[in-house]
Amino acid sequence: MNFGYYMPTRVICGRDCVVKEGERLAALGTHALIVTGKSSAQNGALKDVLRALANNGQGATVFDRVMPNPTLACVREGVALLAGAGADFIVAVGGGSPMDAAKAIATLAVQPRADEAIFAGGYEAAALPMAHVPTTAGTGSEVTPYAILTNDFQRTKTSITSPAMFPRIAFLDGKYMKNLPTMSAVNTAMDAFSHAAEGMLSRNATPMSDLLAKESLSILYPLLPKAMGQTTDEERDLLLYASMLAGMTIAQSGTTAVHGMGYCLTYFHGVDHGRANGLLLGETLRLCSEKKVPALGAILSACGDTLEGVCATLEMLLGERERYPAEELLRFAHTSAANKNIKKSAYEPTEAELLRIFTASCG
Amino acid sequence: MNFGYYMPTRVICGRDCVVKEGERLAALGTHALIVTGKSSAQNGALKDVLRALANNGQGATVFDRVMPNPTLACVREGVALLAGAGADFIVAVGGGSPMDAAKAIATLAVQPRADEAIFAGGYEAAALPMAHVPTTAGTGSEVTPYAILTNDFQRTKTSITSPAMFPRIAFLDGKYMKNLPTMSAVNTAMDAFSHAAEGMLSRNATPMSDLLAKESLSILYPLLPKAMGQTTDEERDLLLYASMLAGMTIAQSGTTAVHGMGYCLTYFHGVDHGRANGLLLGETLRLCSEKKVPALGAILSACGDTLEGVCATLEMLLGERERYPAEELLRFAHTSAANKNIKKSAYEPTEAELLRIFTASCG
Repeated sequence: MNFGYYMPTRVICGRDCVVKEGERLAALGTHALIVTGKSSAQNGALKDVLRALANNGQGATVFDRVMPNPTLACVREGVALLAGAGADFIVAVGGGSPMDAAKAIATLAVQPRADEAIFAGGYEAAALPMAHVPTTAGTGSEVTPYAILTNDFQRTKTSITSPAMFPRIAFLDGKYMKNLPTMSAVNTAMDAFSHAAEGMLSRNATPMSDLLAKESLSILYPLLPKAMGQTTDEERDLLLYASMLAGMTIAQSGTTAVHGMGYCLTYFHGVDHGRANGLLLGETLRLCSEKKVPALGAILSACGDTLEGVCATLEMLLGERERYPAEELLRFAHTSAANKNIKKSAYEPTEAELLRIFTASCG
Repeated sequence: MNFGYYMPTRVICGRDCVVKEGERLAALGTHALIVTGKSSAQNGALKDVLRALANNGQGATVFDRVMPNPTLACVREGVALLAGAGADFIVAVGGGSPMDAAKAIATLAVQPRADEAIFAGGYEAAALPMAHVPTTAGTGSEVTPYAILTNDFQRTKTSITSPAMFPRIAFLDGKYMKNLPTMSAVNTAMDAFSHAAEGMLSRNATPMSDLLAKESLSILYPLLPKAMGQTTDEERDLLLYASMLAGMTIAQSGTTAVHGMGYCLTYFHGVDHGRANGLLLGETLRLCSEKKVPALGAILSACGDTLEGVCATLEMLLGERERYPAEELLRFAHTSAANKNIKKSAYEPTEAELLRIFTASCG
């Protein structure tokens, strides 16, 4: 038994928790930069955060220009706004993109780096304190130390990490997901599902990450088909909880081959991140089955389904698949083979096997 | 879904982890007060800690006078030694007593209080940084924010708590348990088992604490009979892991009736803490069964046994039971009825029911 476990974020889960437990924000600083996208103004999360900050007498500056798959330019803009406003902590509101942008802003604000050095690793454990309010059930970023950014140098998405990137507080309230478009609900659910499954398929899986992943899968899997229709309050709360468990999983294990491949589809074709994972997961699981990866049995058992049952569920969620030319998939397989996430897979696919997965998934 | 989760301790688990990962101690300070009892000199843990500190060029002062069920006087002695040595962090080495004493020392060193105010609560989230090295698999104190001290004012044991009492690091290495006396192994295993079960029987149980508790029970229960004989390396590692999971459980839920009652047996008769819990647990579970407490089914299912099967296992571990006069048990029931842990029970026993448990357990 040889493993580490670390997840220092305080999780607060419950209806209206941002306002009811908003005084927890008081310890983070005097003026917040709220990092968000456009939709948080609609779902009520931004309003709740502003109210909680006002209740504490804290100032706030809103940065609502985070786009999906945030770029370095977006992060730079956030850092500049933060400095100009004299903000000393950050509240992230939204899905994975605002949360990841917030983490990068919180880190670069205290550890400035040139663009070329951003993805070079070696960050100190220092960042401005953050609170995160996820408004989708997919990324789990509220309980991970990773920020995944668009990496134009290598034409992919790349994570940066440091222990200080764990938010101090994560507020989980499923009410913000009530009017989430079905496509977002489905794509983010596939992302969370992929986190839990990939965590178990990781070389770095631990007894703790497996425990969290299995619980996540057992809650998520039966809810996946429901994400396609109108979900109940309770189902949305459960999706958000399961997504957090999947985040806690990858906070320990990291993600693996599916994410490593998926970044190509997102970078070159703008495929939604969760959908990219969903597209590639089925065939990856089939490969794991052929290679007799022990964790596969535990994944299926947590889902309570067979391999082909899981693949059929994903198929239903995906609908019509994207198709890309063979020569492009050859290039994707080649690029992915060097990806650090793929090297974390318990069974590390060869370049030929990556091509097979790409081809079966979107060839 | 309405709950909080917080457990910020970095857990490092593995053979020789104190030395191999000892550089993690470097960030805690320049001079350590090592808080321990007499046995850590024998089991190798103290030697490893001293080596790790020396490797980092950190100074160390050893305070090895912590007795079982540490008193306030013992804590005061530690605080004085710490101040005299100019120590700025603490390494706790041993079972629950040194770990709990260390937490109290770390807190009182920065938040001085008069004796009368020690158990009055309201501690700020401030303490010297700590690393904990458990050498028994029972207390789980390495991942909780509680220090349980002998309370001579109220003639019981009482916990003090603050978020800063979570150790920064917990090093888990089962090798230190190799020569643990059988009686200690059995008593501490019953303590851990009781933490997991009581956590599930708590009014404050959460989805996370239940997940951790069930995993703990499913590992611990089959190992309980083995604690009576010679355990293997792997079994000791598993016991230590399960004890940590039970600690993470009560870090969320707190303990309940069994602990609340058990403190009487320890305070007035010096019954070992884990044994006291073991003595009282069976009849408490029977009461929960009669009162149809929903968590009981989940506890038994995690154990893979019936209620009477679990009671029989405890009986085997306990051997001959202590017996106390009826009038004394009356007094214990009366005292316990006011205990804060008992009020946290999902089913809160009446004073008459507490008397029934005491009488059936040691009458």
